[in-house]
Amino acid sequence: MARFKVVLAYDGTNFAGFQRQPHQRTVEGVLTNVINKMAKHPNPAIIVYGSGRTDAGVHALGQVIHFDFPFKISEIGMLKGINSMLPLDMEVSQVIIVDDDFHARYDVSGKRYLYRFDLSEFINPFKRFYTGHWRFPVDINRIKQAIPSLVGEHDFSSFVASGSTAKTNVRTIYEATCYLDRKQNEVVLEFYGNGFLYNMVRIMAGVLIEIGSNRRDVNDIERLFKVKNRNQARLTAPASGLYLKRVYYEGDDPDHPTKLPVKQR
Amino acid sequence: MARFKVVLAYDGTNFAGFQRQPHQRTVEGVLTNVINKMAKHPNPAIIVYGSGRTDAGVHALGQVIHFDFPFKISEIGMLKGINSMLPLDMEVSQVIIVDDDFHARYDVSGKRYLYRFDLSEFINPFKRFYTGHWRFPVDINRIKQAIPSLVGEHDFSSFVASGSTAKTNVRTIYEATCYLDRKQNEVVLEFYGNGFLYNMVRIMAGVLIEIGSNRRDVNDIERLFKVKNRNQARLTAPASGLYLKRVYYEGDDPDHPTKLPVKQR
Repeated sequence: MARFKVVLAYDGTNFAGFQRQPHQRTVEGVLTNVINKMAKHPNPAIIVYGSGRTDAGVHALGQVIHFDFPFKISEIGMLKGINSMLPLDMEVSQVIIVDDDFHARYDVSGKRYLYRFDLSEFINPFKRFYTGHWRFPVDINRIKQAIPSLVGEHDFSSFVASGSTAKTNVRTIYEATCYLDRKQNEVVLEFYGNGFLYNMVRIMAGVLIEIGSNRRDVNDIERLFKVKNRNQARLTAPASGLYLKRVYYEGDDPDHPTKLPVKQR
Repeated sequence: MARFKVVLAYDGTNFAGFQRQPHQRTVEGVLTNVINKMAKHPNPAIIVYGSGRTDAGVHALGQVIHFDFPFKISEIGMLKGINSMLPLDMEVSQVIIVDDDFHARYDVSGKRYLYRFDLSEFINPFKRFYTGHWRFPVDINRIKQAIPSLVGEHDFSSFVASGSTAKTNVRTIYEATCYLDRKQNEVVLEFYGNGFLYNMVRIMAGVLIEIGSNRRDVNDIERLFKVKNRNQARLTAPASGLYLKRVYYEGDDPDHPTKLPVKQR
């Protein structure tokens, strides 16, 4: 019996999110089936633990899961084995045998998300599932001016969707950056923090794109932190533009070794 | 009554090709419905003429159609009108009112196609519908050495799929280029010619990628021209990697104003 940490990408378009649900195609459901099949359906069944959920339509470039596998198999054997059985909208990029006490969710020290807004006047047929769409003029310098306000430890109560079960809305963002990809005609936002609340990245993306289009003051984020009222943040940017880029564990990032107060245990 | 030339892009993934077919979702079918709806279903119905077919799964960045519209409407009004009614996997990029004798198919003087091969070891979840996949090492310099052999007037009998109804297999290629996109990990091929036979670009792409992977001699294209035998070309690269990039009409390209022997009339 060995514990495997697996890093994987998926196109969220045709999944009803990460979490297993009856009669729905989910990332967790597909992975659980594939891994139990590889192990010839042991009893009890192998359980797959993810670093956290992603919603329907949200993509992952580097989601992390772990599970215990009953047969001896090398890391590369596991990687090729899973990939040969996964559907084409999922792909494992890394497999590591880890200590028996590693936990994909409890040991998370940080996550990195990407958000892409396509700025075309009409929705680009090739991007409809892979970006959010914003058809109004954007001044990237306004977003660049505003985005540092998000960095640091804040109460994100204005940036959490109803339905969140988090005990506290305080989170720390280590990095928040943006750039205009002129070739792709996209605004790309990136957030790295110790944890993110339900819909938090999509709500931050909505606020920032409104700032870029002059629909909010450049200093509006500070006001939103103060009012602690989700209705003030208005938009939740569409799931299609959101990517879970990377999940960090202790030791993964030497820049933030001690900033781990909100372990999601 | 005015004749409209319309340039459009579509994601071919969810279409059974361009040409109208009963009980199938096709590009021509969707366009015909939308344009007749805009004209309040005239009798006889408005007919949509395309520059040529694309197969199921093949994409277009710049397909061209024409039709006659019974009501007065500006070019920009037509563009916004069609786009507001099209599904999200199609998008009109340009509308021009043209002379009554313009014909989207008969007047074609050239076409430009793009082919993308993704070189990842496993199929990239985000590219499965948008590239061909080639998992073997490729030496781009071998393709660069071979690709100029395609340029010029040749008998492409080795590069045409069975089922072609063309009277002659002679076509002229004006430009054939390739490059390695390191960031995307893709080989990108581009072909500009006066006309292309059934599956011709996909067969040329298959031959070139095999040359790149040392499975064919760099000079094999000249041999294929001589033998005039489609079986010798083996592979047809997948539809998912093929894009109709642009359709040219007389006057569109000052570099090739007189090279129009194979008008597809």
